[in-house]
Amino acid sequence: MRDTSMADKKSNAMWGGRFAAGPDAIMEAINASVDFDKRLASQDIAGSRAHAAMLARQGILSDNDAEAIRKGLLTVLSEIEAGEFTFSTALEDIHMNVEARLKEIIGEPAGRLHTARSRNDQVATDFKLWTRDQIDAAISGLEALIRALIAQAEAGADWVMPGFTHLQTAQPVTWGHHMMAYVEMFGRDMSRFADARARMNESPLGAAALAGTGFAIDRHMTAEALGFDRPAANSLDAVADRDFALEFLSSASICAMHLSRFAEELVIWSSAQFRFVTLSDRFSTGSSIMPQKKNPDAAELIRAKIGRIVGAMIALFTVMKGLPLAYSKDMQEDKEQVFDAADTLMLALAAMTGMVSDMTANVDKLRAAAASGFSTATDLADWLVREAGLPFRDAHHVTGALVAMAETKGVDLPDLTLAEMRSVHDAITEGVYDVLTVENSVASRTSYGGTAPEQVRAQIARWKERLG
Amino acid sequence: MRDTSMADKKSNAMWGGRFAAGPDAIMEAINASVDFDKRLASQDIAGSRAHAAMLARQGILSDNDAEAIRKGLLTVLSEIEAGEFTFSTALEDIHMNVEARLKEIIGEPAGRLHTARSRNDQVATDFKLWTRDQIDAAISGLEALIRALIAQAEAGADWVMPGFTHLQTAQPVTWGHHMMAYVEMFGRDMSRFADARARMNESPLGAAALAGTGFAIDRHMTAEALGFDRPAANSLDAVADRDFALEFLSSASICAMHLSRFAEELVIWSSAQFRFVTLSDRFSTGSSIMPQKKNPDAAELIRAKIGRIVGAMIALFTVMKGLPLAYSKDMQEDKEQVFDAADTLMLALAAMTGMVSDMTANVDKLRAAAASGFSTATDLADWLVREAGLPFRDAHHVTGALVAMAETKGVDLPDLTLAEMRSVHDAITEGVYDVLTVENSVASRTSYGGTAPEQVRAQIARWKERLG
Amino acid sequence: MRDTSMADKKSNAMWGGRFAAGPDAIMEAINASVDFDKRLASQDIAGSRAHAAMLARQGILSDNDAEAIRKGLLTVLSEIEAGEFTFSTALEDIHMNVEARLKEIIGEPAGRLHTARSRNDQVATDFKLWTRDQIDAAISGLEALIRALIAQAEAGADWVMPGFTHLQTAQPVTWGHHMMAYVEMFGRDMSRFADARARMNESPLGAAALAGTGFAIDRHMTAEALGFDRPAANSLDAVADRDFALEFLSSASICAMHLSRFAEELVIWSSAQFRFVTLSDRFSTGSSIMPQKKNPDAAELIRAKIGRIVGAMIALFTVMKGLPLAYSKDMQEDKEQVFDAADTLMLALAAMTGMVSDMTANVDKLRAAAASGFSTATDLADWLVREAGLPFRDAHHVTGALVAMAETKGVDLPDLTLAEMRSVHDAITEGVYDVLTVENSVASRTSYGGTAPEQVRAQIARWKERLG
Amino acid sequence: MRDTSMADKKSNAMWGGRFAAGPDAIMEAINASVDFDKRLASQDIAGSRAHAAMLARQGILSDNDAEAIRKGLLTVLSEIEAGEFTFSTALEDIHMNVEARLKEIIGEPAGRLHTARSRNDQVATDFKLWTRDQIDAAISGLEALIRALIAQAEAGADWVMPGFTHLQTAQPVTWGHHMMAYVEMFGRDMSRFADARARMNESPLGAAALAGTGFAIDRHMTAEALGFDRPAANSLDAVADRDFALEFLSSASICAMHLSRFAEELVIWSSAQFRFVTLSDRFSTGSSIMPQKKNPDAAELIRAKIGRIVGAMIALFTVMKGLPLAYSKDMQEDKEQVFDAADTLMLALAAMTGMVSDMTANVDKLRAAAASGFSTATDLADWLVREAGLPFRDAHHVTGALVAMAETKGVDLPDLTLAEMRSVHDAITEGVYDVLTVENSVASRTSYGGTAPEQVRAQIARWKERLG
Repeated sequence: MRDTSMADKKSNAMWGGRFAAGPDAIMEAINASVDFDKRLASQDIAGSRAHAAMLARQGILSDNDAEAIRKGLLTVLSEIEAGEFTFSTALEDIHMNVEARLKEIIGEPAGRLHTARSRNDQVATDFKLWTRDQIDAAISGLEALIRALIAQAEAGADWVMPGFTHLQTAQPVTWGHHMMAYVEMFGRDMSRFADARARMNESPLGAAALAGTGFAIDRHMTAEALGFDRPAANSLDAVADRDFALEFLSSASICAMHLSRFAEELVIWSSAQFRFVTLSDRFSTGSSIMPQKKNPDAAELIRAKIGRIVGAMIALFTVMKGLPLAYSKDMQEDKEQVFDAADTLMLALAAMTGMVSDMTANVDKLRAAAASGFSTATDLADWLVREAGLPFRDAHHVTGALVAMAETKGVDLPDLTLAEMRSVHDAITEGVYDVLTVENSVASRTSYGGTAPEQVRAQIARWKERLG
Repeated sequence: MRDTSMADKKSNAMWGGRFAAGPDAIMEAINASVDFDKRLASQDIAGSRAHAAMLARQGILSDNDAEAIRKGLLTVLSEIEAGEFTFSTALEDIHMNVEARLKEIIGEPAGRLHTARSRNDQVATDFKLWTRDQIDAAISGLEALIRALIAQAEAGADWVMPGFTHLQTAQPVTWGHHMMAYVEMFGRDMSRFADARARMNESPLGAAALAGTGFAIDRHMTAEALGFDRPAANSLDAVADRDFALEFLSSASICAMHLSRFAEELVIWSSAQFRFVTLSDRFSTGSSIMPQKKNPDAAELIRAKIGRIVGAMIALFTVMKGLPLAYSKDMQEDKEQVFDAADTLMLALAAMTGMVSDMTANVDKLRAAAASGFSTATDLADWLVREAGLPFRDAHHVTGALVAMAETKGVDLPDLTLAEMRSVHDAITEGVYDVLTVENSVASRTSYGGTAPEQVRAQIARWKERLG
Repeated sequence: MRDTSMADKKSNAMWGGRFAAGPDAIMEAINASVDFDKRLASQDIAGSRAHAAMLARQGILSDNDAEAIRKGLLTVLSEIEAGEFTFSTALEDIHMNVEARLKEIIGEPAGRLHTARSRNDQVATDFKLWTRDQIDAAISGLEALIRALIAQAEAGADWVMPGFTHLQTAQPVTWGHHMMAYVEMFGRDMSRFADARARMNESPLGAAALAGTGFAIDRHMTAEALGFDRPAANSLDAVADRDFALEFLSSASICAMHLSRFAEELVIWSSAQFRFVTLSDRFSTGSSIMPQKKNPDAAELIRAKIGRIVGAMIALFTVMKGLPLAYSKDMQEDKEQVFDAADTLMLALAAMTGMVSDMTANVDKLRAAAASGFSTATDLADWLVREAGLPFRDAHHVTGALVAMAETKGVDLPDLTLAEMRSVHDAITEGVYDVLTVENSVASRTSYGGTAPEQVRAQIARWKERLG
Repeated sequence: MRDTSMADKKSNAMWGGRFAAGPDAIMEAINASVDFDKRLASQDIAGSRAHAAMLARQGILSDNDAEAIRKGLLTVLSEIEAGEFTFSTALEDIHMNVEARLKEIIGEPAGRLHTARSRNDQVATDFKLWTRDQIDAAISGLEALIRALIAQAEAGADWVMPGFTHLQTAQPVTWGHHMMAYVEMFGRDMSRFADARARMNESPLGAAALAGTGFAIDRHMTAEALGFDRPAANSLDAVADRDFALEFLSSASICAMHLSRFAEELVIWSSAQFRFVTLSDRFSTGSSIMPQKKNPDAAELIRAKIGRIVGAMIALFTVMKGLPLAYSKDMQEDKEQVFDAADTLMLALAAMTGMVSDMTANVDKLRAAAASGFSTATDLADWLVREAGLPFRDAHHVTGALVAMAETKGVDLPDLTLAEMRSVHDAITEGVYDVLTVENSVASRTSYGGTAPEQVRAQIARWKERLG
């Protein structure tokens, strides 16, 4: 081994310091979850309230006990919300923390609450309720972002900008069209989250440890009380399933991918070389000595956030790989990943919404960039096909010759004279000039979903109707 | 650097050998895609046929040309299907290979086929069609697996086996219940694939390079011809979107996760220590000297396949991260990942279906394992709550004392005498013995979705109706 | 869209509540890092002390100013260590928090500390120092685990247990041999961390923003003061590089993979069906009603932790993919991933060390399992090759016949009579019985690194010498 | 379920078609590996030759048999290299294919070759040898790339270009400095591969199935013959270890990350807006109608390749997670991932080397971009500290005021008169103009590793010596 006498002493001290308290402290550190699962407190109490109400209606719990439990749980909830609750690691998790406090408050009836359930169905229920709330929040956040994009698209439905392939100008498009491309992406994200919500919306409560229970419970009643569409159909599956968490994470990852693409564009568009957009001061940071410099920090951070969300997804896939039924302690690793991914996604959506609302398109820069690089060459080729009847591949050949001629002369396509054009192919007529400006180019692309302002406005109208 | 004189010579030779042909060969090797995208041949030709028919109806193509193209494409297809087609790397991709051959066959009209489209919308269309077929195949494969599981569940709706948590016996469950837990998982997989199919089922064709086109095309007509629900609403998005591939990969990953869990169980259940199941010879391999040994190779391979599918998903997320619109060459990396993941998933589903159909549950072993380890202790506790009115936590305490007594005496719970039981708590009566056998335990768990045979049979009935 | 009137109101409220404070609050939330990078406080102050001392020796800073800075930094450090420091999010990061407090304490000279450096080289230096400490801690933790494994190996160098392939008994091995297999794995992990440490041990300090500086600084002096082997050779690379974080994460992932394998074995070995080991109460949890039940929670959690570490690695790879030089804000995402992975690894190593130290091998169970399943069949085949001169493939054939005979008779191989054996092949002699017991089998495997107790003890001896 | 009558029929047909041959075909498809592991043929034969020679020297094999085996193996090898070998899926893997053919050629002695070994140690040996070769190839490829970068750096050691942070101009740097930043990264990659090579270079051969062997083999002899440093120290570990594959994949992933960063820069630098470089025609593709358009396809594909390599790494981590010792069939998934990642890495390195060698820096564009945006503001601030004695933070304040003045006047910093400058701070003297040009700025950054041409040339010199 390498000679690390001094370093070893230091790291041994660190190592020792970290775990000086011995095996019991290590076990508590690795085993307890209340440090993070306390975020499930309100869901846990909602679940317990529904369970107690059902036990009472089924005659398993007396009305007096049920009422004591109900009031006690509300007290616990208010303590937690007021920040007056002391969480105990020795009590391991949120469920035991709540129940122990309930016992302090109401005494013996607290011991009857856990009848016909188990921590296995309880945690599955809590975590599903939490994740369902996050889906609703994600859908709201996406809607806000879509509205911001639509506002940009409406303002610039006919602003011309370069349409890129390979980051090379390919054809002119409109600002509104580009914004609406992202609306489609984020719209699919909304729909993906909505599907995930519908699929997960089955109640695990009443699955008990794994086998169901012999008590005459009514799982439909608790399902309804908690907003679930129905009880989960198999109790083993109900406690062993973490699909809903994985589906949330993969939907969030696809959404984060979209955010990363737009963020990359904003970073490039903000460079001195592009200057397509100016981001607001709020979403940039400056330099103390270069006041004109604006770093697109928010865009960069949003671009990076996909790492965190995809990482969370991989973490949970790795955890779930090869786990036998029904419940294994490994599954305790599910929550922190979903918590972090959800927080990250909401923050990234909010920051992107703010940036989009605040940003200014530099319309002149966009138009100038669109008009360079012979960007209407395909319009010329299409004209040759449409008006002069050339086969597509021949039209391309003629166009290439005209672009080469223009490049040699140092001019753009509309600057070639008709005579020069006809020297390459004599079917060319005056009408060709109608398609050589970028404005005419975009105006002509009226195929459904195309970049023509009228198509962009139609797409906007459809979205406005959809959002209501 | 390390001394690697000999090794370097060798690896330089390898390096040199690999790329001896120089930069042009390197570029061809990294750039050409026909080696893999030839799998899209039939989709490519279907797309071209739909496009040509539409161009003709819109008057963009003459009927004669359209007919020549139609016949020519059918010829190309039959050549490819017969294995008589020579793919050329110099022609880069499947699209150019097909078009070049078409030109050889029908001459000039071939040059008119590419009117009002581009390779960008063409490849998006081809790849979506291919992926959509895979979704249909995955759903069929899942249905076959579900039927195999239902057959096992029906046979063993009342076979008792241990229900595990932490791989420790927790409570008795039924074989049928365990099988039906997987039916729920694979059922969700079916529904997830169906949702993905519906979401992706929008036609990119007619988006052209990225901006749409000025030709008077009818995108609704081509969409319908190719079985799409509608044309994609934004042409930039249509060529830049690979959500459908990511959603396919994440749905496949979740499905592979389920397969890995069941495969792990089969590996453990096949061990000499468990012997819960006997796998058929077909899905095991033997040893030449230990004829009784059966290695669960198929189960192990299925368990491993999640790696490959999750790896493909991560590959594509990484590729798509931060790509500006609209098309970048990076996106060429999409296909091989989806191809490999789809092949892997179909094979894993088929192997699992075969294994499930062929496997034999060792009913005696299962029952014996379920009956050990005081697995009916919770039944006893529940009895104390239900019949003797003890609070849940007190009932647990009494049960713990009884289990400890049984353990000390070296007997199981049903073997304790009533007097012994009453020495711990005098509310216990003769009736307690009704819940202490594993058969009575499972029979009692009649809550919706519980492990009682009647519940298992009800769940089976619901599934049979659903599958039709 | 789906009908979500009520849910939308709720989630909009949540969404609104989350970001009610508006864009500025969102930007602060996404941009500030002090909530996590405060963990770099002691490294930040060490770096600043080294920098100030160097500036003074080079005459860039007066001795008085340098002394004021030194004392001031020690004050700040003691405030932080005492928990008396108030971190400010408005000051963004640890660097600005420390510098601002320094200014409060010592006034104007604080403004001279940042001469000839930038936050870019500062954060790279801090983070490398922190990561280097974690490598040292990981190596110490691995050494502790290796010592625990060696203790188990010494105790059971000749305890016989089944050697598994496919979780099927293949050949008998020794407990010590199995433990020492993990020693090799964790030994490679130590060496991998040591290599990573050597590679990263170059000082970024003095790279300044990215271009180096015109001040006459001495980067070798600060490098030495901070325990680096040398200054980094290129200032652009020095601020842009996060290889060291990725290499830490991938080394940690491989180590976590080893931990997950051993953890899986412990979970399986703890099952009622195996009972190969008994884990201590400290690293298990019980059931309130099944006192004999021991859930291997710690083993399950360790098995799961690989998810978290691999997830962190993927997160950072995704972040770094495609980032232009030199510094981008995306890189701020590096720290939380490494922090969490390091904490997770140290905890998992400590828990595994505790579990290994505490666990008890059930020697009788192990031996009995090893002796079943004709586990010495290969010994018999090898005997036929070695003593009777049969080709390997023929020997296998004969052995298969003998195993089949034993199985039919319901006995094990050593129970067959010599006559019975000779009825299959007459070259078999009395000597064959010497290799048919599991003890003789393991004793015979004396090839280097084999399972024979003498080989295991030799391997132990080599490791003890290596660890010193 | 959705109504999929027609689709179902089609996909059922596909499904059926795929697996029409029934369970046996499915098992062969999932189980056989020869389709891919035939790439290990030469390694397999090298291993067998070393094994046979050792068996002969140890007297376990007769010299005649050994000679027959040696000759037979050479014949098999020449058949494979000539493409005349027929691989059989029924024989499962490369080992059995080779052995079966050997038996056809030399008869009975072939059956003696497998004495004292197993497929488990055989495949580990083959795969390590193959991976070791790839490491050597990767190091050669990296060296070629480094030489290409050094050539660029030498040519442009003093070409000025913008140094970016956040893709915003921060300070001027030199082209040579930027190139040499990548030399450091790829240099670390070389060293990482070299470390991985040293760590993995232990021979599994002789570990047999898992327990070692009772034959008197000499593992040191076979280790030496195959170029290993020593035999692996524990036979269980030797057959169960796939660390070397994971370490190869993670080293390749870090290298691919570096490639993706440079590729991203090349894509951005090739845009019409930047035009910092012109890529050669060989590594670009054009447009048939826009002859001036050059798409940086090779750069984009290299940028994407990290996805594939990271995906392969995740695949293998997922496979290995939680696998019990010693060999499980899951591990068969290791090879395809490493094969694909290695092929991908070699191709990406070759393409990058070609692109770097061929590309042309547009020196004027680079200088002009560097000189805009007040890029020497930090030089001015440093001058104020160094020459006028201002504290760093005050100097920043003064500089900010001067930049604001220049921006208002629409000029750059060197265009302000001394009087104008002194109106902001009267300590400014004529000397300040020495630091305000980009040439003087870069020339001044002479700290070790800084961007000054002299430092760049020193770094180049160190690398040339290192490479020899």
